[in-house]
Amino acid sequence: MAVTPWEVSGKVDYDKLVKDFGTARITPALRARLERNAGESNAMLRRDYFFSHRDLDLVMDDYENGKGFYLYTGRGPSGPMHIGHLIPLIFAKWLQDRFRANLYIEITDDEKFLCKRDAEWEGIAKFAGENMRDIAAVGFDPDRTFIFRDSEYVGNVYPMLVKIAKKINFSTVKAVFGFTNETNIGFIFYPAYQIMPTMFEKRRCLIPAAIDQDPYWRIQRDIAESMGYHKTAAIHSKFLPPLQGAAGKMSSSMKESAIWLDDDAKTVRRKIMKYAFSGGRSTLEEHRRIGADLSVDVPFQWLSVLFEPDDAELKRIADEYGSGRMLTGEIKEILASKLNAFLAEHRERKENADVEKYTYTGKLAREMWKKKFE
Amino acid sequence: MAVTPWEVSGKVDYDKLVKDFGTARITPALRARLERNAGESNAMLRRDYFFSHRDLDLVMDDYENGKGFYLYTGRGPSGPMHIGHLIPLIFAKWLQDRFRANLYIEITDDEKFLCKRDAEWEGIAKFAGENMRDIAAVGFDPDRTFIFRDSEYVGNVYPMLVKIAKKINFSTVKAVFGFTNETNIGFIFYPAYQIMPTMFEKRRCLIPAAIDQDPYWRIQRDIAESMGYHKTAAIHSKFLPPLQGAAGKMSSSMKESAIWLDDDAKTVRRKIMKYAFSGGRSTLEEHRRIGADLSVDVPFQWLSVLFEPDDAELKRIADEYGSGRMLTGEIKEILASKLNAFLAEHRERKENADVEKYTYTGKLAREMWKKKFE
Repeated sequence: MAVTPWEVSGKVDYDKLVKDFGTARITPALRARLERNAGESNAMLRRDYFFSHRDLDLVMDDYENGKGFYLYTGRGPSGPMHIGHLIPLIFAKWLQDRFRANLYIEITDDEKFLCKRDAEWEGIAKFAGENMRDIAAVGFDPDRTFIFRDSEYVGNVYPMLVKIAKKINFSTVKAVFGFTNETNIGFIFYPAYQIMPTMFEKRRCLIPAAIDQDPYWRIQRDIAESMGYHKTAAIHSKFLPPLQGAAGKMSSSMKESAIWLDDDAKTVRRKIMKYAFSGGRSTLEEHRRIGADLSVDVPFQWLSVLFEPDDAELKRIADEYGSGRMLTGEIKEILASKLNAFLAEHRERKENADVEKYTYTGKLAREMWKKKFE
Repeated sequence: MAVTPWEVSGKVDYDKLVKDFGTARITPALRARLERNAGESNAMLRRDYFFSHRDLDLVMDDYENGKGFYLYTGRGPSGPMHIGHLIPLIFAKWLQDRFRANLYIEITDDEKFLCKRDAEWEGIAKFAGENMRDIAAVGFDPDRTFIFRDSEYVGNVYPMLVKIAKKINFSTVKAVFGFTNETNIGFIFYPAYQIMPTMFEKRRCLIPAAIDQDPYWRIQRDIAESMGYHKTAAIHSKFLPPLQGAAGKMSSSMKESAIWLDDDAKTVRRKIMKYAFSGGRSTLEEHRRIGADLSVDVPFQWLSVLFEPDDAELKRIADEYGSGRMLTGEIKEILASKLNAFLAEHRERKENADVEKYTYTGKLAREMWKKKFE
């Protein structure tokens, strides 16, 4: 198992990650408190997809005593977006809606250019624009959301970047990220920028993101208080398994391992039928007799994470498929149809999305362009 | 002897520096060519104060065949400015005037904040503003000069910074600058910014600066052509010796070792009388008999570098003082009076300097704020 902000491979042991990273499991009591404050339940929480946290209890304290909190997440625009990229954003929207919280979304064009040897700036810039339209399609509150590209917003934050950078030495990034003497000096500097938005407000920051991003927050939590800011809080998701199986995460470099947001209905159906790893048995007779192994079945997992929020319906599928009454082909059809409905709606929202609201003209965006962080 | 961009100490052996850094001495023929193209001679060249170069011959080729070139130098705003800080700027003005060349002056607020453990951003910002007024007082061409603070201009150059940074790894900055695991990640990144202005134009860049800055240009010359730019050229000065003697350079941290641009006439005279290291002899009798040792005499060296541009007058002083007819007190009076005249004029120009011309409203400044370097 390897889990870094740039690579997830092998069978992920989430208990081990929680222990190694020093985060905490979301307990049933804490989940209940979050859902009570939110005023509704959430399938990604109920089903333990968002499973780990840092200081989520303090965020709830701040919410309950009226201080409030804000949200921050991001996207590295190294290519087109797939379904897995959307999940923390969908969860962030739920948090924003339920808590009426400001949300900052960092588009890390610098990071993606710096970390990939063959990345071209022009390509990254193109994907950044395209990704921002996909992100806008999630439907965030246009007056409480600010989406910004690192390269474009840097003029407003550079003094803060150097203040953060001054507190982090090479030993630290070497230990935390495994940087070496061959790492380029831009990538060595970059962690300062990913940390910076945790200091956009004096209130506590809550970061909904996959757990592979946690190393940045560890560094942030070592330096934030000395700069007059809160240690950031985080709520960590697992990884959406790739179509081919439960190990690692969907990889942008393997076109066929993911469902892309611009895959058409036929492609989606074909990929799921052909590639989605099945917990079904090798013969019909065996399948009918012992039923599918849900724990490795990718279609069932995707339905659990996002595409079948109704617990009763998910249970029905689990019962039918797990007992062998439902066949692999049938659950795959269910997923394909749910996915295609989701994607059709996404594309429609994307076409109508007013990206400028989030980047320049909405209330929060206008405020952010006026600010200088020093 | 230690010569790095942040420290100069010990007796500087300029021949050894030329050899170690791999630069070239300015030959009499090259100096003659530069002065012929300039249309006049220059004391700092004639007296070997600007003594070393990289590709100055190619700059002259470009000038002679009509391509032209541009100038770039800088200032780290870690405190008030002393006489030594002004010298490369005065020489840059001469080059600008004679060659009608664009000149870019980088105010490295980020560098100075990052390299000094106890530097506060607010203090650096204050000195940056103050230094810019001193620099404007040199009297550059307002339509061919752009003075910019790193932290303020970063929004226009960040994609180029990351492109440069991607080409430099930790091994390189470790070898060139002696960075260690304890170096902070901002300072590790900074060389990208000092290199960036060498790519402001597609024409060749000529950098007038003290030779301690040369390590940056070595890195630049390794990567520039792969990015479609010229290897930068440079013309290197020696260091103005501190008042107390010929070793090292004037240090901003030793208030009494330098003449500050805001020292009043009385202070200037007192410091020179009290501290300026003298080549005069210990008794009047001995001095009259063997004369002063000009090679270690600080007042004579300061007159040579800047304050007595007239060769005939300088020779008269050398003859008188070297033969013992002139006394230490007398040459010190000459220097004090020249220096005070220079400083009075500087302060008057500073009061009337229109800094905005160089930073925002002059022709080159306006063009530069419109540009995005990607």
